[in-house]
Amino acid sequence: MTLDTARLAPMANAIRALSMDAVQAANSGHPGMPMGMADVATILWTEYLKHDPATPDWADRDRFVLSAGHGSMLIYSLLHLSGYAHPTMEDIRNFRQLGSPCAGHPENFLLDAVECTTGPLGQGVAMAVGMAIAERHLNAAFGNDTVDHRTWVVAGDGCLMEGINHEAIGLAGHLKLGRMNVLWDDNAITIDGPTSLSTSEDIKARYEATGWHVVSCDGHEFADIRRALDEAVADERPSLVACSTVIGKGAPTKQGTSATHGAPLGDEEIAGTRTAIGWDAKPFEVPEQVLSDWRASARRGAQERASWQKRQESFAKRGEFERRMAGDLPANFSLDNYIQSLMKDPVKVATRKASEMVLEQINGKLSETIGGSADLTGSNNTKAGGIGPLTADDYAGRYIYYGIREFGMAAAMNGMALHGGIIPYGGTFLVFTDYCRGAIRLSALQQARVVYVMTHDSIGLGEDGPTHQPIEHVQSLRMMPNLLVMRPADAIETAECWEIALRQKNRPTVLALSRQNLPQVRNAPEEVDQSSRGAYRLKKPGNSRKVTLIASGSEVHLALKCAEELEKQGVGASVVSMVCTQLFDEQDAAYQADMIPGDTLAVSIEAGTTFGWERYTGRDGLNIGIDSFGASAPASDLFEKFGLTAEAIVPQIINKLNA
Amino acid sequence: MTLDTARLAPMANAIRALSMDAVQAANSGHPGMPMGMADVATILWTEYLKHDPATPDWADRDRFVLSAGHGSMLIYSLLHLSGYAHPTMEDIRNFRQLGSPCAGHPENFLLDAVECTTGPLGQGVAMAVGMAIAERHLNAAFGNDTVDHRTWVVAGDGCLMEGINHEAIGLAGHLKLGRMNVLWDDNAITIDGPTSLSTSEDIKARYEATGWHVVSCDGHEFADIRRALDEAVADERPSLVACSTVIGKGAPTKQGTSATHGAPLGDEEIAGTRTAIGWDAKPFEVPEQVLSDWRASARRGAQERASWQKRQESFAKRGEFERRMAGDLPANFSLDNYIQSLMKDPVKVATRKASEMVLEQINGKLSETIGGSADLTGSNNTKAGGIGPLTADDYAGRYIYYGIREFGMAAAMNGMALHGGIIPYGGTFLVFTDYCRGAIRLSALQQARVVYVMTHDSIGLGEDGPTHQPIEHVQSLRMMPNLLVMRPADAIETAECWEIALRQKNRPTVLALSRQNLPQVRNAPEEVDQSSRGAYRLKKPGNSRKVTLIASGSEVHLALKCAEELEKQGVGASVVSMVCTQLFDEQDAAYQADMIPGDTLAVSIEAGTTFGWERYTGRDGLNIGIDSFGASAPASDLFEKFGLTAEAIVPQIINKLNA
Repeated sequence: MTLDTARLAPMANAIRALSMDAVQAANSGHPGMPMGMADVATILWTEYLKHDPATPDWADRDRFVLSAGHGSMLIYSLLHLSGYAHPTMEDIRNFRQLGSPCAGHPENFLLDAVECTTGPLGQGVAMAVGMAIAERHLNAAFGNDTVDHRTWVVAGDGCLMEGINHEAIGLAGHLKLGRMNVLWDDNAITIDGPTSLSTSEDIKARYEATGWHVVSCDGHEFADIRRALDEAVADERPSLVACSTVIGKGAPTKQGTSATHGAPLGDEEIAGTRTAIGWDAKPFEVPEQVLSDWRASARRGAQERASWQKRQESFAKRGEFERRMAGDLPANFSLDNYIQSLMKDPVKVATRKASEMVLEQINGKLSETIGGSADLTGSNNTKAGGIGPLTADDYAGRYIYYGIREFGMAAAMNGMALHGGIIPYGGTFLVFTDYCRGAIRLSALQQARVVYVMTHDSIGLGEDGPTHQPIEHVQSLRMMPNLLVMRPADAIETAECWEIALRQKNRPTVLALSRQNLPQVRNAPEEVDQSSRGAYRLKKPGNSRKVTLIASGSEVHLALKCAEELEKQGVGASVVSMVCTQLFDEQDAAYQADMIPGDTLAVSIEAGTTFGWERYTGRDGLNIGIDSFGASAPASDLFEKFGLTAEAIVPQIINKLNA
Repeated sequence: MTLDTARLAPMANAIRALSMDAVQAANSGHPGMPMGMADVATILWTEYLKHDPATPDWADRDRFVLSAGHGSMLIYSLLHLSGYAHPTMEDIRNFRQLGSPCAGHPENFLLDAVECTTGPLGQGVAMAVGMAIAERHLNAAFGNDTVDHRTWVVAGDGCLMEGINHEAIGLAGHLKLGRMNVLWDDNAITIDGPTSLSTSEDIKARYEATGWHVVSCDGHEFADIRRALDEAVADERPSLVACSTVIGKGAPTKQGTSATHGAPLGDEEIAGTRTAIGWDAKPFEVPEQVLSDWRASARRGAQERASWQKRQESFAKRGEFERRMAGDLPANFSLDNYIQSLMKDPVKVATRKASEMVLEQINGKLSETIGGSADLTGSNNTKAGGIGPLTADDYAGRYIYYGIREFGMAAAMNGMALHGGIIPYGGTFLVFTDYCRGAIRLSALQQARVVYVMTHDSIGLGEDGPTHQPIEHVQSLRMMPNLLVMRPADAIETAECWEIALRQKNRPTVLALSRQNLPQVRNAPEEVDQSSRGAYRLKKPGNSRKVTLIASGSEVHLALKCAEELEKQGVGASVVSMVCTQLFDEQDAAYQADMIPGDTLAVSIEAGTTFGWERYTGRDGLNIGIDSFGASAPASDLFEKFGLTAEAIVPQIINKLNA
């Protein structure tokens, strides 16, 4: 369906009107972007985007990412006008109000057709890279008849200026993700004013330098937009479509200025806009012909979906494809045999190595994992199970060399998880969660099953020193909502943690893993699945119960040592392995009280900040940890320097008991 | 002093020998980079770098940043060979051992001549941008005779691939920082293998697109290196010098491979290298002629410094320059009058606005502040006191439009603070500390006085929703070592916090400021300087003492409301404003116990995660907060939804008391 300007202009103006009216009603929001990109979006959605409003979860739909998420009224308008069940006009009226799915920024958990949560700039583009990777990988696995779609992004100057943009487009260019197209809202305005205040970059040249195809168009000329999109679709490289636009297009006195970016236009300007664009309809009303043109445009996608559906009926791998897109693990998936084998033959390995060992199992049993590392493959031990590299020449590969791009990696993993059909995991050093924290938070907010394999998890990494030694990191991640942070103590806990992580359909996991070898602390075959309650008793008190030692990861065996020494001195001490505080906090009060009885001295031992451990030890407990930066030296010297030895800890406990 | 190859080659080989031997002795470290860049570094340090080993703190020295910090043996070698007092050869022998200043990565707090701590990739380049800004700004303020130096960076592929690189070079190109030169160790190798595994970028074209001058050289040909450096020095733009090198140059079987990157070469390979480069000296011994050539090269800088010193003697602004470089505030600096005026005429403003009000005072009284924002000037309220923009045309300006580059901004501020003479402050939304956390951590580790103006500090920002609402951020920053996190409750506390921040010579500060208006909670003129103890009692209990309410920022006035209601019900309640947990933790036990008596129910109230508040409330206390993501709605609706009202809180306290 190709309409002429007379029919298209009011369709685009419907976006402008809804956007300015909704922002005005909410008395907050961003009208400038939706009004500026209305023409481009109209062409894209009515003529290019493959989607079926009746089936927002159609697996082979094109993915549309509004990376400039503040312009959320653009996508709410597009969804409503195209005929999606949600948002309704009532939802749009309640833009930015409590309970409306039309939140300030688009949230993937509020509207089916919002592919991902955007707002933190640059991450939309980077997630789209992950979606485009997922598409090519699934295409390689399941064929053209099943997976054959594009990824479209609308991005603003902010998205392009953020550092993560560099990482994302570097990855996309390298992997030749030709089915990804970024529509750049090139309006030369940011919040502070003209872009010339802060940048002099030749953006097109930069994209070209990174292996992208670049095409420009007048973002307010329908024919020119079509020409550019045709070219973008035809080119084998990922494309940047530079759409020259006027921010707030239509607003008579404010268009082209930062005044339209993030504030209501005001009644007078809105009235002026109505006149200027010839829009007579009342707020939140769309003329019948305009709506009917929008709705008609969606028929193309409905037909495509129907024929796709038909093809699926005879597809041999349909069951497997549907299972993967549903995010279900194979019914027979289990790591029990592997764990039992460890029970029989204990190993003393670093938990990063233990992670590699269990990945050998996992990657053999699951076809949906895609691993990777931000240039620390040999250190993160993430390449296992015989998986080969995913490259521009072989999208069937299951291992991504992300390069030195932690943030880009994490966001790409979000995109893969949200696309569906893939469980991504990726590694870097735990300390560099600081580099990708913005994306870890979006994993959690978006309820995306991403597994972060974060190794070198404390001063135990030794000589690399304080820049590389996490101190506050584990605790600071534990307080992020909807994120599991697991710090396993040995190979068995590591396997249990991996299984828990894989079974979280709506939660990401950070695995904090040691560089140094750790003894296996558990080898009783009947004690299975202990980690799932977050914390469990590894050692009961021998003498009369006085002390509860709570430790995680590499400090669990230290706690066992302390307990042994305490028992020798007649002090009964139990040891609790705190694998995951979040899961422990979810247990009932009786279990929690059983693990950490109120009538004992509770002592936390973790080679990191003590801040926060008081949740479990109280104001009268004892917290053993490190509240300063680390240092450069062999690990054993550091554990001694920072007092993380039984010799240093036990006397403190005795003193505290005697105080 | 220009030496021929016969003299230069052994000088460069001294770096190679020291590097491979130190890494071997430590049995960990990175020999590949120092060996690969030895020739380039030798030319740079002996013929271009303006420095005087006898005076590492000479204000007008060139700044040298080893952005590829893992190659730390390069700078340790250079410093020792050039004749700096530290590191000694004994220090180098103890590379990576406890107590040696030759840590795994270069630490600015361990060696005078290490300008900044590097290791977290990309940040060295970005800090160098800040140093180069500082140089131009101080040049504008104090003239060519006093400030006229260059900033040199050695960076690897990792530094260039990180997202922050894009932000940093974008800023440098825009500000035309022509006195900044980046020497890129172009060896085509990363940890995982050849760079072709993960990138296809035309790096030179990318730098050119961002306003940089680019020149290439053979990094092992002394004459060619000189040619390239001459060109870099001559060009008005910042320069990227692409030095084509062989990683691990000299190692007969391993050079040119990732095997040399991050592991000792091994005895056999080291012996082979000695033969290959003709190095007969024993480990940690440098032949006399070689050492004497190195030491002679430093005379150039000593002479320059002497003539600079002479010029200073007659410099009218010498005192002011020295004060600023020493990091001392003017002796008469005080905000007392301003604070007293607020006591007299209380204001109800957002603390971000209160910050602007006090900045009006500060920027008028101090010439050393340079403000800025990552494209949120009007929201962060950071432009105040009549300061004008710092631009390529006017380096005398004191306000930087950083663009949408949070990480780049934070790292640049670190560079400015470390350069000296400047107190940088910059703003973004508090939630985007996630974007620049890696640099905030380096502010703390490097003991750099940087002030982060982080506004929109809770769900109080309202409609922008969960992507923009900090939940875990304040607490997660509080646990970072050597960082002050302050959450002032009103205009008076905001002023006090600013003064505390400015007086921290060795500590960065994060100010968490509200978007929404807050009533002034203090107006007793005799109560000055309360914030400096971290927490103080704002309201004494009226009835018999039963409850201690501990709140921060926008929840302090809510706590006062709760206390009022409790008193009405006969429950004595004090209110403690917890402005800064770190400062409170530094107080003596008596003061702490006086503020939060053990015999009362301690209740924390903060619109963020409750995790960690148990430090002050214990296991039997009550923590009021938000342990999920936020939502999009007007702020008042959100405070109600999340139970942050006196109506919701007081009954919980009563219940707890009755339990």
